[in-house]
Amino acid sequence: MQRPRSYLGRFCHAPERGRVECLEDTLVSVDEDGRIVSVLRPSDDGYNRAMTEGPVESMPRGAYVLPGFCDLHVHAPQWPQIGKALHVPLEVWLQQHTFPLEARYSDLAFAKTAYTGLVDDLLSNGTTTALYFATIHQEATRLLADICLDKGQRALIGKVVMDNPEQCPDIYRDESTDDALRGTEDFIAYVRGLNNDRIKPVVTPRFIPSCTDAALDGLGELARSCRCHIQTHASESDWQHRYVFQRHGRSDTDSLDRFGLLTRHTVLAHGNFLSLGNMEILAARGSGVAHCPLSNAYFSNAVFPLKRALEKGVRVGLGSDISGGPSSFLPDSIRAAVFASRLLDDGVDCEKDYPERGIRDSRIDWRTAFYLATLGGADVLDLPVGAFEVGRQFDAILIDPNARGGSLNLMDGYDSTEDGLQKILYTANKANITRVWVAGRAVV
Amino acid sequence: MQRPRSYLGRFCHAPERGRVECLEDTLVSVDEDGRIVSVLRPSDDGYNRAMTEGPVESMPRGAYVLPGFCDLHVHAPQWPQIGKALHVPLEVWLQQHTFPLEARYSDLAFAKTAYTGLVDDLLSNGTTTALYFATIHQEATRLLADICLDKGQRALIGKVVMDNPEQCPDIYRDESTDDALRGTEDFIAYVRGLNNDRIKPVVTPRFIPSCTDAALDGLGELARSCRCHIQTHASESDWQHRYVFQRHGRSDTDSLDRFGLLTRHTVLAHGNFLSLGNMEILAARGSGVAHCPLSNAYFSNAVFPLKRALEKGVRVGLGSDISGGPSSFLPDSIRAAVFASRLLDDGVDCEKDYPERGIRDSRIDWRTAFYLATLGGADVLDLPVGAFEVGRQFDAILIDPNARGGSLNLMDGYDSTEDGLQKILYTANKANITRVWVAGRAVV
Ligand SMILES: [Zn+2]
Ligand SMILES: [Zn+2]
Repeated sequence: MQRPRSYLGRFCHAPERGRVECLEDTLVSVDEDGRIVSVLRPSDDGYNRAMTEGPVESMPRGAYVLPGFCDLHVHAPQWPQIGKALHVPLEVWLQQHTFPLEARYSDLAFAKTAYTGLVDDLLSNGTTTALYFATIHQEATRLLADICLDKGQRALIGKVVMDNPEQCPDIYRDESTDDALRGTEDFIAYVRGLNNDRIKPVVTPRFIPSCTDAALDGLGELARSCRCHIQTHASESDWQHRYVFQRHGRSDTDSLDRFGLLTRHTVLAHGNFLSLGNMEILAARGSGVAHCPLSNAYFSNAVFPLKRALEKGVRVGLGSDISGGPSSFLPDSIRAAVFASRLLDDGVDCEKDYPERGIRDSRIDWRTAFYLATLGGADVLDLPVGAFEVGRQFDAILIDPNARGGSLNLMDGYDSTEDGLQKILYTANKANITRVWVAGRAVV
Repeated sequence: MQRPRSYLGRFCHAPERGRVECLEDTLVSVDEDGRIVSVLRPSDDGYNRAMTEGPVESMPRGAYVLPGFCDLHVHAPQWPQIGKALHVPLEVWLQQHTFPLEARYSDLAFAKTAYTGLVDDLLSNGTTTALYFATIHQEATRLLADICLDKGQRALIGKVVMDNPEQCPDIYRDESTDDALRGTEDFIAYVRGLNNDRIKPVVTPRFIPSCTDAALDGLGELARSCRCHIQTHASESDWQHRYVFQRHGRSDTDSLDRFGLLTRHTVLAHGNFLSLGNMEILAARGSGVAHCPLSNAYFSNAVFPLKRALEKGVRVGLGSDISGGPSSFLPDSIRAAVFASRLLDDGVDCEKDYPERGIRDSRIDWRTAFYLATLGGADVLDLPVGAFEVGRQFDAILIDPNARGGSLNLMDGYDSTEDGLQKILYTANKANITRVWVAGRAVV
C-alpha cells in the first residue's frame, strides 16, 4: 500500500447550506484511490506525524483550495454555440441554431474537435463533475465518455432520447422508439464496460415534448432495471409547462412520476414553474433540480423559486445549461443565482409597490450559492465529492489571487480569509484557477 | 509634423444604438494627438498609400479591436471592497462598511495603494474612460487625478460633497457647507491646472439625502459658472426615492432641476424609479443616466426601465458602480444589462401570468448593451471616443481569443466575425484583453 499524498494549505468549502468554513494551515491527505483519509488542523493529534510521513505538497502562499464545481446541466454538443444566438426566441433558437448544431455530431471528426474543446474548457474552469446531455448519436456519445475518461473529468452522460415526430425535426430525431431505447441500453452497457467509477450513464429523455409516451414508458422501466441516474427538463417555460398539461392533463412532475422517472437519482433541469405540490413530490422521491439562472433569463419566463424549493426539502444544485446559458465558468452561475434571487425578492417593475412587486424572502446569499455549486450538486447526484471531509473524493481547484490575467484583487490587512473567499466567488475568473484535481489526480 | 501611426486589423464597434459593424482588414490611422485621421478599407482610395506611408502595425491574426469601455459610475474609494458585503442591507452596507472605508482616504498612503490598484485594474479591464466619485478629501482626490494622468486613463473625477449632518456620520462628512463648496472649487482649479484634456473635474453632490439645500444651491451655481460635468445618484431605491419626496415634495429629477443640476453634462446614476415625466425632463435637458444593472440587484429595489428611457430620448450609458456592483470588468455590466432587461420583460413570479408578470417590450439585446458601454457612454459625457470614426480619439482594446487564461472559444469555420464579437461580449474575460490604448497611446 502506498502512503497517502498530503496537501498543506488553506481549504474553504460549504459543509452545509448557508455556511462556509475556511481551514487554515490544514493538511488534507488523499489515498491512491483519490479518497480523503484525513483532514488535520495544526492543533489536531496526528498533524505532526502526517507532516513527516508521506509526501507533503504546500500550496502557494495566499492561495485558496476549493472543492471543484459540480455542473448539473450541460448540453455537451452546444459548446461551440456558447454566447451566440441568445437574442432570438426559443423556437428559432431550437430549430435554426441548436438542432442543426446537435445534428452535426453524426460527424465524428466534428464531435471529436468540439468535445475535446468542451472537456478541456470545463476542467480549466474548475468543473470537476459534469452531468451531460449528449446527442442522439451512439458513436459521438461514446466518444464523449472516452474523452472524459481520458482527461480525468468526473462525468455522467446521457444519450439523448427524442423520438416524437411531432416535435422533433427530420434532421435530428431517433429513427424509432425502439431505436431510442436500444440506443440508451447500448450506451449504458458501453459506459459500464469502461469499468471506471468516474463515468456513469444517464437515462435522458430530452423533455416530455420530444418523447413519445412509449419512449417515456420504456425509459422508466430501463431506469428501474439499470438503477441509473435520470435527467430531463421540467417546467422550464410557459410554453413547455402548458404543453404537458395539454398532452397529459397534468404537470411535468406528475407526468414524469407516472412514468417512473422520478427517483433519488433524477435531476430535473430548471423547474421554474414547479408548484408547491410538485415540490412536495420531488422532496418525497428525493429527486433534485438543476437550477440554471443564466439560461432562465433567456429561455424561461420567470425566475425559479429557489428558496421556496429549498425550504420544501427539494435538493438543488447549479447548472450552466451550456449553451442556453452563455458561460461555461460555473461561478457565473453562482453570481446569477444570487442576482436572480434578489430580483425575484424585490420584483422588477418600479411602478408596483413592494412587496406586491416581488416575492418576499426569496433571496439567497453567496454562501448558499457556493454550497449549491459544490456540495449541493454532489448531494443531488449522490456522489462523494464537494467538500473536504474524510471519505469524500479529493476533487478540488486551486485559486491563485496573483495569477496573470486573473481578476481577483485582495488587499493585505483589509481582507479576512472569508472576505477572500467571497471575493473569489464574486470576482475571480478562469485565469485565477491554476490547478484542478479530480479523484486526487491533477488534471489541469 | 509626425506621420500618423496606423493599425491594421479587424475593428468592431456600435456606430449607433442597436447596430454593430465589423470592419475587416481595415487601416485606422491616428495622429500624434490620438485623433483618428482616417479609417480605410481595402477598397477605399488611399488605402494603398496609407499602407506604405507611416508606420503600420498589424494586429495579431484572429484578434479583434474594440472601442475601449466607458464606465459612467465608479466609486473609486470602494475598489478594495469589490465582491464584499453584498448580502447586507443598504443601511448596514453604508454605515458599517462603505463610509468607514471611504473615511480611510484621509490617509494618503492607503489612498495611493488603493487608487493605484484601481486604475491599473480598470485599464487592464479595458475601461479607457471612467467617471469617478472620489471621497470628500482634497489630497486623496487630487492624487486620484495624478494617478489617472500618469497611467494614461481618461478620467472625470469629483470630490464628493456630503455636508448634511442628519444623513452623514461624524467620521465621514464635510466639515461645513462652505468647506464642501470651497473644496469642490479648489479641486476644479487643481484639475484645470493639470492642463490635460484627458482629466476633467466633476461637480459631485453624493445624492440629495447627503447634501443640505445650501450645498445643492451652491453646487448648481458652481456648475453653471465652471461649465463642469455634474454627477449624482437619483431615484435609486424605494427609500431614497421617498426621502426626496418627503424633504422636497418632489422627485429627485424635479428637485435637481430646481437647483440647476440638470444640464447637458449631468450624469445621474441608476434612475430606477424615474417616471415618464422625469424622463421627459432629462431628455429636454440633455442629461444622461448611468445604468448600473449589477448594483441595482443589490441596492435598488426594481429594474431600471432602460428601454423605456431610451425610447423617451434619454441618453444612457453603463456603470459598474464599484463596489455596489461586484465587478470592475464592464462586460459583466453589459451581460447584466441584457439579463435584467429580460427579467423586466418576462417578469419573475411564476404564479402570475405573462404579460401581467413583467413589462412587455422591455428587453434589449447585446448590440444595444455594447453600444451603451462604448459610444452611448461617450455620448452621455460628450467625449469624442467610443467608435472608430474620423475625428474621434483612438481609445481601444485588443481582444486576443488565444490569450492564456482567456475564456473565449471561437471555432474556425463555425463562427462568423459577428459571432466572434457576440462571443467576446458574452464570454471573454480580462485575460483576453491583451492591449489597451487611450488617445493613441498604449497604456497596457
Ligand atoms: Zn437544457
Ligand atoms: Zn453609486
